[in-house]
Amino acid sequence: MSNSSSKDNTTTMKALVFHGPNNLALEDRPRPTLKESTDAIVRITTTSICGTDLHILKGDVPTVEDGRILGHEGVGIIEEAGSSVLNFKKGDKVLISLITSCGRCDFCKRAMYSHCSNGGWRLGNHIDGTQAEYVRIPYADTGLYRLSPDIDDEAAVMLSCNMPTGLECGTLSGQVKPGDTVAIIGAGPVGLAALLTAQLYSPAEIIIIGHNNDRLEIARSLGATQIINSADGKAVEQVMELTKNAGVDVAIEAVGVAATFDIAQSIITPGGRIANMGVHGKPVELHLEKLWSSNITLTTRLVDAGTTPMLLKMVESGRLDTKKLISHRFELSEILKAYDTYANAAKKHALKVVIKCQGVIAT
Amino acid sequence: MSNSSSKDNTTTMKALVFHGPNNLALEDRPRPTLKESTDAIVRITTTSICGTDLHILKGDVPTVEDGRILGHEGVGIIEEAGSSVLNFKKGDKVLISLITSCGRCDFCKRAMYSHCSNGGWRLGNHIDGTQAEYVRIPYADTGLYRLSPDIDDEAAVMLSCNMPTGLECGTLSGQVKPGDTVAIIGAGPVGLAALLTAQLYSPAEIIIIGHNNDRLEIARSLGATQIINSADGKAVEQVMELTKNAGVDVAIEAVGVAATFDIAQSIITPGGRIANMGVHGKPVELHLEKLWSSNITLTTRLVDAGTTPMLLKMVESGRLDTKKLISHRFELSEILKAYDTYANAAKKHALKVVIKCQGVIAT
Amino acid sequence: MSNSSSKDNTTTMKALVFHGPNNLALEDRPRPTLKESTDAIVRITTTSICGTDLHILKGDVPTVEDGRILGHEGVGIIEEAGSSVLNFKKGDKVLISLITSCGRCDFCKRAMYSHCSNGGWRLGNHIDGTQAEYVRIPYADTGLYRLSPDIDDEAAVMLSCNMPTGLECGTLSGQVKPGDTVAIIGAGPVGLAALLTAQLYSPAEIIIIGHNNDRLEIARSLGATQIINSADGKAVEQVMELTKNAGVDVAIEAVGVAATFDIAQSIITPGGRIANMGVHGKPVELHLEKLWSSNITLTTRLVDAGTTPMLLKMVESGRLDTKKLISHRFELSEILKAYDTYANAAKKHALKVVIKCQGVIAT
Amino acid sequence: MSNSSSKDNTTTMKALVFHGPNNLALEDRPRPTLKESTDAIVRITTTSICGTDLHILKGDVPTVEDGRILGHEGVGIIEEAGSSVLNFKKGDKVLISLITSCGRCDFCKRAMYSHCSNGGWRLGNHIDGTQAEYVRIPYADTGLYRLSPDIDDEAAVMLSCNMPTGLECGTLSGQVKPGDTVAIIGAGPVGLAALLTAQLYSPAEIIIIGHNNDRLEIARSLGATQIINSADGKAVEQVMELTKNAGVDVAIEAVGVAATFDIAQSIITPGGRIANMGVHGKPVELHLEKLWSSNITLTTRLVDAGTTPMLLKMVESGRLDTKKLISHRFELSEILKAYDTYANAAKKHALKVVIKCQGVIAT
Repeated sequence: MSNSSSKDNTTTMKALVFHGPNNLALEDRPRPTLKESTDAIVRITTTSICGTDLHILKGDVPTVEDGRILGHEGVGIIEEAGSSVLNFKKGDKVLISLITSCGRCDFCKRAMYSHCSNGGWRLGNHIDGTQAEYVRIPYADTGLYRLSPDIDDEAAVMLSCNMPTGLECGTLSGQVKPGDTVAIIGAGPVGLAALLTAQLYSPAEIIIIGHNNDRLEIARSLGATQIINSADGKAVEQVMELTKNAGVDVAIEAVGVAATFDIAQSIITPGGRIANMGVHGKPVELHLEKLWSSNITLTTRLVDAGTTPMLLKMVESGRLDTKKLISHRFELSEILKAYDTYANAAKKHALKVVIKCQGVIAT
Repeated sequence: MSNSSSKDNTTTMKALVFHGPNNLALEDRPRPTLKESTDAIVRITTTSICGTDLHILKGDVPTVEDGRILGHEGVGIIEEAGSSVLNFKKGDKVLISLITSCGRCDFCKRAMYSHCSNGGWRLGNHIDGTQAEYVRIPYADTGLYRLSPDIDDEAAVMLSCNMPTGLECGTLSGQVKPGDTVAIIGAGPVGLAALLTAQLYSPAEIIIIGHNNDRLEIARSLGATQIINSADGKAVEQVMELTKNAGVDVAIEAVGVAATFDIAQSIITPGGRIANMGVHGKPVELHLEKLWSSNITLTTRLVDAGTTPMLLKMVESGRLDTKKLISHRFELSEILKAYDTYANAAKKHALKVVIKCQGVIAT
Repeated sequence: MSNSSSKDNTTTMKALVFHGPNNLALEDRPRPTLKESTDAIVRITTTSICGTDLHILKGDVPTVEDGRILGHEGVGIIEEAGSSVLNFKKGDKVLISLITSCGRCDFCKRAMYSHCSNGGWRLGNHIDGTQAEYVRIPYADTGLYRLSPDIDDEAAVMLSCNMPTGLECGTLSGQVKPGDTVAIIGAGPVGLAALLTAQLYSPAEIIIIGHNNDRLEIARSLGATQIINSADGKAVEQVMELTKNAGVDVAIEAVGVAATFDIAQSIITPGGRIANMGVHGKPVELHLEKLWSSNITLTTRLVDAGTTPMLLKMVESGRLDTKKLISHRFELSEILKAYDTYANAAKKHALKVVIKCQGVIAT
Repeated sequence: MSNSSSKDNTTTMKALVFHGPNNLALEDRPRPTLKESTDAIVRITTTSICGTDLHILKGDVPTVEDGRILGHEGVGIIEEAGSSVLNFKKGDKVLISLITSCGRCDFCKRAMYSHCSNGGWRLGNHIDGTQAEYVRIPYADTGLYRLSPDIDDEAAVMLSCNMPTGLECGTLSGQVKPGDTVAIIGAGPVGLAALLTAQLYSPAEIIIIGHNNDRLEIARSLGATQIINSADGKAVEQVMELTKNAGVDVAIEAVGVAATFDIAQSIITPGGRIANMGVHGKPVELHLEKLWSSNITLTTRLVDAGTTPMLLKMVESGRLDTKKLISHRFELSEILKAYDTYANAAKKHALKVVIKCQGVIAT
């Protein structure tokens, strides 16, 4: 077996490799090595699968080429740090951010790391990712966060992508405030991340709208004060009734299609904020003939992950329980089964699935 | 004539009355009297015509009924103040705000005066307006602003509606900052008000886009650093060329149709702000398939006029020259001619037109 | 007794009257009547005693004259509303705000109600207050808040003064954010109100510093993550140890003397915020020779009570339990005993004491 | 002479060296070389002298050791860039920031570059500075800014330290807004930088307070609307008279002694902001017995220089004329005379003095 059974000089590792639409394989690949003095090599202990990985699998993300190792979420141990890396050394436990950022371009200086001229979302996209035993992380000082040795891997790995997305693109863009009434349209992992993080700002009510009763009940257990199954097409009427026709202060769109965006723009109160989190493939109709006079704010955003240090503090202080988002665990050797589970979330009652890689090492 | 020469018992006045689409008349009407203890009666010295008045004239504003005195802009002298009015007494010179606000409802407490439960845009809409010798102002304490006796009426009347609209719905919603590149799409009076007020925040570049070369040249004289005539359909290409393909930090839409909104969403830089000022009659297509990942903010807004005190300070200190927006002056007796001039702005080279009412009184 | 047993024509009421330092009496006084059309008369059902009342009792507040009815906290029922009052009618249940505000002056328009040109803290100070069966409330529309009939009086009365003070002068001025480390110096009712409201913004740690172990244990039960008894003069060292020499992001001073202010300025981290809530009688020494380069922000503030609607939503939605601040209940007939209890808080283990007035009425 | 006359292999340069209090010398020193892959070597074309350099000269800055090359302001040309430098290459024209920042520590991620764990104010302090023909710049990507080849060196060099200090520690900390009344106490180069940058936010009035009439007249020419010579000890009375007893919205302290801080706290209006820019050597008395109820905000700050890109845009677009701050020019060979001029600013009518270094090279 990879590294343990071959301490001598084995330089291969197991990795989940994309070979075109609907074609994934767990393969032996060469272990990554340092390319730049600012790189670090991280031995992955825990990784997970993101909804975006499913989009890649379907062939929807043209930047991902045949042969790419997938994954942009992970927790691990520094195996080797380049000579220019200031913050990390071999043996440090780290969180891997989905966002690669140089820290030196105009966008980074404005904290828009997602648009970094030398980075952005690159792991498991333009470069090999984290669903493997090892990964190379460019600009390690800005792409990794130190973890205390006793933090739970699974709690931490939710902070690679899922939690900062819900926080930044949903809660913060929507400017959730104490006393607000918030609606979240979409009860998938990112919608639920918005649900968890919205509560950091103490809204009075959080309404979750979805079409899967399992997920809606999970949302209720995670803090939603009202749940609405939109399958009957009456979500708007129900929200207006719940809010005595006032509408909601914040509407967070967490799906990415016209129908859910329509709900958002139909329930927003004057002065309210619509935070779009969904990845849209088509234009939507914006009802400016009604909204022009409503003093609303509509935002779009890629996650920048600049809030990761704050989220880490909240997890470490025990005030944020991100493990509640995890429904299934697998070993790296079972990763294809993990993809199958995540791809059939409704049938398998799946939320986030995590992949443990350290078992491999212990062999 | 009216009040001075006839203290005895004259109780009529001249007023511009709406009698259905394309039917205006200057008529004798009873002078308004106090209805509530919070009202004031203002003798108008200067009023003006707004683009919205032209919409009313066309029949586009269904809340305006036959018999309504038009106008929501004005400067005048307090003729009588109700017993509960704290801030004003007979003889005070005042600016009339287009927004009626009670100062006591939930919206007023949030400074969203435009959505006041007991007010909003009411003058020349739900109640008789300012294109007359006298007007009744509800909630006088919050609907009027004291003017120093020596302020220029014409400079002040631009602050009833035009300047706060450009400032609040354009400049402030667009969060114009020093160093920004700003594009304003639409060179009418409200677009030009955005142009004047944007300069209070020192953007590096202000590009104005319109289709009337006269107006564009005026915009240049008012501080635009670049002008683009969009008649050739190449405005987007020109903006991208001027900005070296970076796009603009702020795009202010000041027309209200799909084509101009499209320009705004096509030229916005990642992290930029689109401020919609235009009154839209139809939905627009929002290109979320491109913008979902651009970290943009889109705002809509009715003017709340909460910035009026600041604008008054700027005019009084000589730092803001609002009279530059005025192209024509008329007497109240000529107000039908004034409407004709404003309705044919391109042909008549008209910007804002003001109506002097005190001449009537001197008769 | 007053209104119930004597519907005929009784016009007196019981009231707690100040007669100079250390001289209070429960007396019969004429019931208040409307003076202005914007007034309302409120029949008090619940009132409470504030630390400021103790300062008045000592003779420290020169604006309070012999004969003044004390009290600025209260919940009650509208007995009569003036003709200009828009929001309330006889029979409405209301919360009385400590702040009288006209809603029409420059300060009110900037939401600085505490500095209202026609108001400010007037109840139980310049005009008769709430520790009585009835009170006259000027500018009722802006000085009262509607309560749902089923809200608990005691939970609501904490919102007259205590909770908005902790929120506005402590939590909001200190810009408490998720993940922050907050120190509150002073564990009295206002310090504890800061403790409760800080949690609306999810700091990672809240350290309370005081000298009364009872109060500190209460603070712990209300959400403090660390408590420090400062009696040994080592509070600064302990905070620095707890924060690994980083200091705190927010220091809230809730006492009003030089020693506690010194703690605040000694523990603040670079970039941190010091929110002064204490009422100071003397100048303090500010260590600018250290702090000039620390990027800190120091704020002072009178409570404006503009956050009352938000606090009401939080109480109504069950997300804020303000009754935890109450240690003792008394009838109005026992109010002198209530003062004695509150004045000897340490000995009597007292926090907030509330006075029920409806029992009197039922007699 | 150094590099030109000795293209062969000369490796010395001229540099201004500190040898203890009141002991400066222009000496031959070895040219700096790259130490880290993130360094760059810059050939200085223009440098200048800061007030802080005079403090060093007096022996007030203990971190500056005998043998240190002084200077933290400069414009130059990249002579050599380390292998990890992304943004610059040999021949690029650059602005040197006074702040060294790694871009990767917790403080840098919060944009508090002044407190960078690996940087801060280091040039001419802990490491050799810019008053020389060459300088080594650590973390070149974050410590340098690209200049267009045609920008004026003198206009640019004001952005190394002076202008961002006035902007960040004065104007931005003071939250200067359109319509505000601003007082700046201190008419030295940093006070004047606050004066220039405050105008980017369009205050209605800017009052400058100083004791040197020359400087005050310069302030007037740079945009001050009122000047006050405080030599008679009546500055507070004069400000209150000018503001009709309202006080100022923003008071910027630009000296660093108790007397000027006292002026600031005596003239601030309720709700106002005091921005401390001065470097204080002693504690000050803060009048919390008056200010506790005034809703004021007091800030301290080291310059972070994060606003440099914005200032560059303003200079490049011609909207900010920083050269107005320059009173004298010298060659590097005359730098001791430049120090003498700057140290006797009042007698020599000096503002900023700049040192041209390229003349040396042309020899």
